Amino acid sequence: MWVMDNQRFLGERDSWSRAEQFGDGVFETLLVSAGICHALPFHAQRLESGLKRLEIALPEQNLQDMLKDYIEKMINHSALSDGVLKVMVSRGNSARGYGYDRQAKACVRVFYSPYKRPEKACYVNGIEVQYCNTQCAIQPQLAGLKHLNRLENVLAKSELNDGCFEGLMSNHLGFVIEGTMSNVFFEKDGSLYTPELSLSGVGGVMRNLIFKYCERKDISLNVMDIKRDNAEQFNSAFVCNSVMGILPIKTLNKNNMAVGQLSRQLQLAIESGEMYA
Amino acid sequence: MWVMDNQRFLGERDSWSRAEQFGDGVFETLLVSAGICHALPFHAQRLESGLKRLEIALPEQNLQDMLKDYIEKMINHSALSDGVLKVMVSRGNSARGYGYDRQAKACVRVFYSPYKRPEKACYVNGIEVQYCNTQCAIQPQLAGLKHLNRLENVLAKSELNDGCFEGLMSNHLGFVIEGTMSNVFFEKDGSLYTPELSLSGVGGVMRNLIFKYCERKDISLNVMDIKRDNAEQFNSAFVCNSVMGILPIKTLNKNNMAVGQLSRQLQLAIESGEMYA
Repeated sequence: MWVMDNQRFLGERDSWSRAEQFGDGVFETLLVSAGICHALPFHAQRLESGLKRLEIALPEQNLQDMLKDYIEKMINHSALSDGVLKVMVSRGNSARGYGYDRQAKACVRVFYSPYKRPEKACYVNGIEVQYCNTQCAIQPQLAGLKHLNRLENVLAKSELNDGCFEGLMSNHLGFVIEGTMSNVFFEKDGSLYTPELSLSGVGGVMRNLIFKYCERKDISLNVMDIKRDNAEQFNSAFVCNSVMGILPIKTLNKNNMAVGQLSRQLQLAIESGEMYA
Repeated sequence: MWVMDNQRFLGERDSWSRAEQFGDGVFETLLVSAGICHALPFHAQRLESGLKRLEIALPEQNLQDMLKDYIEKMINHSALSDGVLKVMVSRGNSARGYGYDRQAKACVRVFYSPYKRPEKACYVNGIEVQYCNTQCAIQPQLAGLKHLNRLENVLAKSELNDGCFEGLMSNHLGFVIEGTMSNVFFEKDGSLYTPELSLSGVGGVMRNLIFKYCERKDISLNVMDIKRDNAEQFNSAFVCNSVMGILPIKTLNKNNMAVGQLSRQLQLAIESGEMYA
């Protein structure tokens, strides 16, 4: 096929990136602190299950070693021991159709950038959060995966009002699912509540770490369908992801929320490293 | 940010394709026959409404002229007056986050390939079609758009059994939505029935052309929710898109279907050019 790029001829090609044509792949975003990614096994595990679900095969046997190798190479190359590593794995290249060759060579693209943490006040006092109109798709075959089809996150993010740090998205059934770039937890009377993600959303690495931590510490955690209307019964909540950690919600759609005790405990567990034990 | 591509350092970049990172864009696939695309205004219209919905701005004032110009350039370049033109328009490049700069420069990528039409028997006798397990997302903000988030089409297509030409996808509510690369119409007692696409699916150019044709010819056409179980009441059906035209369904999940009279009439309208009037 012949290819043009913004009016410029690129010549003849056999194939083109399936990530670009279809979003045919998955990705991970890892926080690197002092040369280390604390959540490495969890990222490797999710990457592996995503690739399995999409039937994308990588030659690398051990994905944790692969990620570790990329971190080391990027640190050596950039001389930055703190940063964010984004790893995209796609089904490589093909012609224009949806069908693919099962022998196609997967493509790994890695980005490493400096990371600017949210200000300390965001962690201490919390952040402003709003509800977004853009929904999370109901798509059971893709739910949980951190795949490359992220148009709805782009649209939801673009809705955010000035001063709003994050937006919460619901699905068509009216269930709260997640933030545009985070998972959400609610807190009440010493228990945590977080949305069920079997129909919609991304199963975040920090969400998974919190699950394990709560299990170890015998903290009551409920994974359930939470209607947006019912979310008002909770007076504490936080959003989280593996890069920024845990950010309490100060206001949700302008309504005040308090920082919960468990939210604080989980923040401390990240700081002390106990979260990654 | 520093970039690596399959273990190879590409150096430092400011940004990377948002099509590849997020599927942040839309596309059109046009059939060019003897140098002409009959459905050009319809493709231009859908492209325009897609870009508007995603708030992606192109410098080109007239998208029909832009598409026409690409067709001419590709024909001159390739010396092929018949082929398929795929035009992807994305929100250009950015760093790793979902947020974007509203001044970002959109990117147009164009592919032109020879087209191999399905065999004549597919048009005359029909094709084998199966139901897919992979669902169409329920996502009202993206429904109707031909956007670049096409992972579910990829997964659905990969389900097809040998000999099956196309697969029908339903959404989580159990409504039949479309084929992996086509829209679907059912026929009964001189009327046509096609799924409502306000929650899921792509509003195809051929679907739209059929709507206009039925209006002109006073053919009864019903756009409605069709449960998969209710689809059995129809004994004729076809799938369609603007590239391959109209293909009757010979068997649906191994059950025989007859080629409908209206299906034939619509096929003839494409051949005579009346469909594009």
